[in-house]
Amino acid sequence: MTPEMTEKWLPQPPVVTPYNAGATLIKAPSDAIVLFDGSNLSKWENAAGKSAEWTVHDGVFTVKKGTGNIRTKQRFKDFQLHLEWRVPKGIEGKSQLRGNSGLFLQDMYEVQILDCYQNETYANGQTGSIYKQTPPLVNAMNKPGEWNTYDVIYTAPTFRKDGTYRTPPGVTVIQNGILLQYNTVIQGNTPYIGFPQVVPHGDGPIGLQDHNDDSAPISFRNIWIREL
Amino acid sequence: MTPEMTEKWLPQPPVVTPYNAGATLIKAPSDAIVLFDGSNLSKWENAAGKSAEWTVHDGVFTVKKGTGNIRTKQRFKDFQLHLEWRVPKGIEGKSQLRGNSGLFLQDMYEVQILDCYQNETYANGQTGSIYKQTPPLVNAMNKPGEWNTYDVIYTAPTFRKDGTYRTPPGVTVIQNGILLQYNTVIQGNTPYIGFPQVVPHGDGPIGLQDHNDDSAPISFRNIWIREL
Amino acid sequence: MTPEMTEKWLPQPPVVTPYNAGATLIKAPSDAIVLFDGSNLSKWENAAGKSAEWTVHDGVFTVKKGTGNIRTKQRFKDFQLHLEWRVPKGIEGKSQLRGNSGLFLQDMYEVQILDCYQNETYANGQTGSIYKQTPPLVNAMNKPGEWNTYDVIYTAPTFRKDGTYRTPPGVTVIQNGILLQYNTVIQGNTPYIGFPQVVPHGDGPIGLQDHNDDSAPISFRNIWIREL
Amino acid sequence: MTPEMTEKWLPQPPVVTPYNAGATLIKAPSDAIVLFDGSNLSKWENAAGKSAEWTVHDGVFTVKKGTGNIRTKQRFKDFQLHLEWRVPKGIEGKSQLRGNSGLFLQDMYEVQILDCYQNETYANGQTGSIYKQTPPLVNAMNKPGEWNTYDVIYTAPTFRKDGTYRTPPGVTVIQNGILLQYNTVIQGNTPYIGFPQVVPHGDGPIGLQDHNDDSAPISFRNIWIREL
Repeated sequence: MTPEMTEKWLPQPPVVTPYNAGATLIKAPSDAIVLFDGSNLSKWENAAGKSAEWTVHDGVFTVKKGTGNIRTKQRFKDFQLHLEWRVPKGIEGKSQLRGNSGLFLQDMYEVQILDCYQNETYANGQTGSIYKQTPPLVNAMNKPGEWNTYDVIYTAPTFRKDGTYRTPPGVTVIQNGILLQYNTVIQGNTPYIGFPQVVPHGDGPIGLQDHNDDSAPISFRNIWIREL
Repeated sequence: MTPEMTEKWLPQPPVVTPYNAGATLIKAPSDAIVLFDGSNLSKWENAAGKSAEWTVHDGVFTVKKGTGNIRTKQRFKDFQLHLEWRVPKGIEGKSQLRGNSGLFLQDMYEVQILDCYQNETYANGQTGSIYKQTPPLVNAMNKPGEWNTYDVIYTAPTFRKDGTYRTPPGVTVIQNGILLQYNTVIQGNTPYIGFPQVVPHGDGPIGLQDHNDDSAPISFRNIWIREL
Repeated sequence: MTPEMTEKWLPQPPVVTPYNAGATLIKAPSDAIVLFDGSNLSKWENAAGKSAEWTVHDGVFTVKKGTGNIRTKQRFKDFQLHLEWRVPKGIEGKSQLRGNSGLFLQDMYEVQILDCYQNETYANGQTGSIYKQTPPLVNAMNKPGEWNTYDVIYTAPTFRKDGTYRTPPGVTVIQNGILLQYNTVIQGNTPYIGFPQVVPHGDGPIGLQDHNDDSAPISFRNIWIREL
Repeated sequence: MTPEMTEKWLPQPPVVTPYNAGATLIKAPSDAIVLFDGSNLSKWENAAGKSAEWTVHDGVFTVKKGTGNIRTKQRFKDFQLHLEWRVPKGIEGKSQLRGNSGLFLQDMYEVQILDCYQNETYANGQTGSIYKQTPPLVNAMNKPGEWNTYDVIYTAPTFRKDGTYRTPPGVTVIQNGILLQYNTVIQGNTPYIGFPQVVPHGDGPIGLQDHNDDSAPISFRNIWIREL
C-alpha cells in the first residue's frame, strides 16, 4: 500500500474561528499530575528510556529535530489531559509539512497536531484527527504564533483473550474550547501506511512526536493530567 | 414516595480545587449562537412564552425569585453549550437551600446547579449531578462570589414507536475545566419526587431554574451554544 | 421504601406468540461448557457452597422449595448462555406468585423468570425484565407446560477505583427466538425493595432462584454457556 | 487500491462445531413479517424494481446466476431478522469462490454468506464478517448440504447534517445459535475494493447477493423479520 491510500480528503471540516484568550486558559486543578510546569522535562523520557532532549526555554519546551519522540515516564489508563501547543509565527510549508507533531495516547494512538491554519491537508490527517482514521468535526485553529489548547478525555480499551478489542479505546478532543472528537471509537493504531492494527497493551505513557522535518519546531506548555 | 427516597448520599464525590481564572475563560467561537452577551434576555422567555423577567445588570443576569424558570426561544437537538454561573458571596443556607438553580437540557433533563462549596448534600443532587440520577465524578466548585464555568456536550435521544428510548440521551459536563460527567446515560426526566420517566420529545430549549427560595439569587453570563 | 414503589406497570409490553418448537431448539456447540446435560447437578452448588438440593428427574431439574438459590461452581465474565425453563401445566396464582424464579448474571443481576402467559404483573417484573429496572420489549411466553428458551449475551462491568461502574454491565435476552432486551445497560443490582446499588465484583457464577413459594416449581434443562 | 489490500487474514476465527438441528429451528412469531414462506418471491424484487428472477423450488429459493441481487420491496429501519441458507452438497472451489452470497442490511452493509466449512479465506471476508471490515468471533459453519441459520439484530444509523454518522449502524449476528458479531459498529458501506464509505440513507430493504459465479447456487428458506 501507499500512504496516499489511507488519506481521506473530503469533506473538509468547516473552519471555526475560536476565541483566543491570548493566555493560558486552564491551569492544573488540585488533583492533577503536572507533566510540565515550565521548568524541565523530568517527567519525560525518549524512546530509549533516556533523558528527553527537547529544548526547554522561556517556560515552554520545543521539539528538537532528530532526537525522536518523547513520552511520559508514568503510564496511564483512563485520563483527562490538558496541553497547549504552538507552531512558530512565520512558519512555511504546506499540507503535512507544516508544523507536524502528534499526541500519542498510551503510546499507541495518535491525535494529530499540525498547523491547519489556512493549510489544506487530508481531513483524517488534520489537527484533531485520529490520524488516518477519523477527521475532526471542525477546524478550530489559532494562527501560527498563537497557543492552541487541547483538552482530551481518553478511555482505554479492554481486550479479549484473542487480542481483539473487548471494548475499543475512545477519545474526546476539545481544541480551543471547541469540540473536535466526541467519544470517538479508535479502531487500532495509527500508522502512516496501511490500516489500523489492534495490538494488545496495558497502561501506557503520553507521547509527543518529533516529526523530524524542518517545518516542525512545535512548542508545548502547561501540560497536566487527571487519572479517571 | 417521598423526596428523600431518591437521594443518594454516599459516596460523596471527592473535592477538587480548580484553577480559578478569575475571568471569563472561553468566549464564543465564530459558529456559536450567543444566548447571552451581557446586554439583554432577548433570546429567552418564561414558561408561558412571555418575556423572561429575570434581572439583567452589570453584564450578567440573575434569577428573580418567583418569576419562574426561563428557557431559550430556540430549540436544539445535539449541542455543545458554554455557560458561567455564580452564587453570591456571603451566601447562607445549607444542602439544597444554598444557591440552587439548574440547567435543563431540552427542557427535560436537569443538570444541577448548587453552591456545593463546603456544603454537603446528597451526591446525586450535587452540582453537576444528573438530578436524582447520577452524581458527578468530583466536586469542583469555586467559592461563592467566584464564577464557575460549565461546558456541556449533549446528545439527544431517539425514540421507539412505543415511546421508550431507542437511544437514550447522554451528557458530558465539565466544570471549571474538570470532568464531572462523561457521556453519562440519562435515564429519563429528573423529578424531585419519584423515578425518572421517559417522555417522548423532539428538539427542545435550554432552560434555567428559578428555585423560588431566598438563598438562590444565582447569576449567569457568557452563554453560547454550538449545534452539533 | 416499599416494594410497590419500584414497580413500573405501564406500558405493558405487547404480547407476541412465539413459534413453539415443542422440542429443544439449540443444543451445545463444541466450545460450550455444558452446565446441565440432564443427568445431575454436579456443576452447581447452593449458597453455602454445598451440594445443590434441587430435584433432578426425567432429564430436567426442578426448584425444590426452601432449599435456596443455586449457582454454578464455575465463575464467568462475558458469556453467551442458553437455558430452557418450564412452568408446570395447570399452574395457579397471579402476578409474581405464579411460576417465579430468576436467572442471576454473575450472582448479582436478575433476569426475571415468571409465568407471564395471560398473567399481568408490573412490566419491570415480567419475564425477561432486568428485575425492577427495565421491562422486556415484548411478552413472548409459551404456555404453562411448554418449554421456553433463553439465549442470553452478557458483558461484565469494569469498575473505577471508587467502586462505581467504569463500563456498566449489559445484557441481551432472546426468549423463544424473540428479542426481549438488546444490550440493555444494567444500572446495578436488582433488589426487591429499593434502588439498584452498584457493588464492585469480579467474575461470578450463574445463579437460579428458589422463590420459596408454592407456585414456583420451575423446571430447567439444556443449559450451556460459551465464554466470550 | 487492489482488493487484496483490504483483506485481513489473521487471526483466523476459531472453528466451532454447531449443533445441527437438521431442521428449521425458529419459525416466524406472530408479529413477524414473513419475507419467504416457501411459495414465491412476491415480497422481493430485483435491482431494477422488477420481479425477482431467482428460482423457487421445493419450498426454498436459489440464486439464479446472472440475474442480479434481489431485495425486499419493503424498507426497514431497526429489525430482528431470521433467515436460513444452504450451500449445495458437493460444492467445489475455494476461498471466495465457494458458495458466495451476502446479506445486505438496508441495501448498504453486507454480512458475508460463504461456504467456510474447511475453506480458508480472509477473516474479514468469512461467513458472518462485516465484509472487508470485521471478522466474526468464530467460524460456526454447518457442512455443505446442511442448512445454516442467521439471526440478525440491526440498529440503523442516524446522520449529522454533514452526512457523517451521528450514531453508526450496529449489528449482531448469530449463526446456528452461536454468536458471531455483537452489536458491532459498522464503519460504512462494504465495497470489494477500497475503504468503507459513509453514505447518508434512510430506511432500506433487505438484500441478497447474486455473486455471479458458478460456485454460488446458494438456497434460502424461512425468512422473517420483526421491526424493532
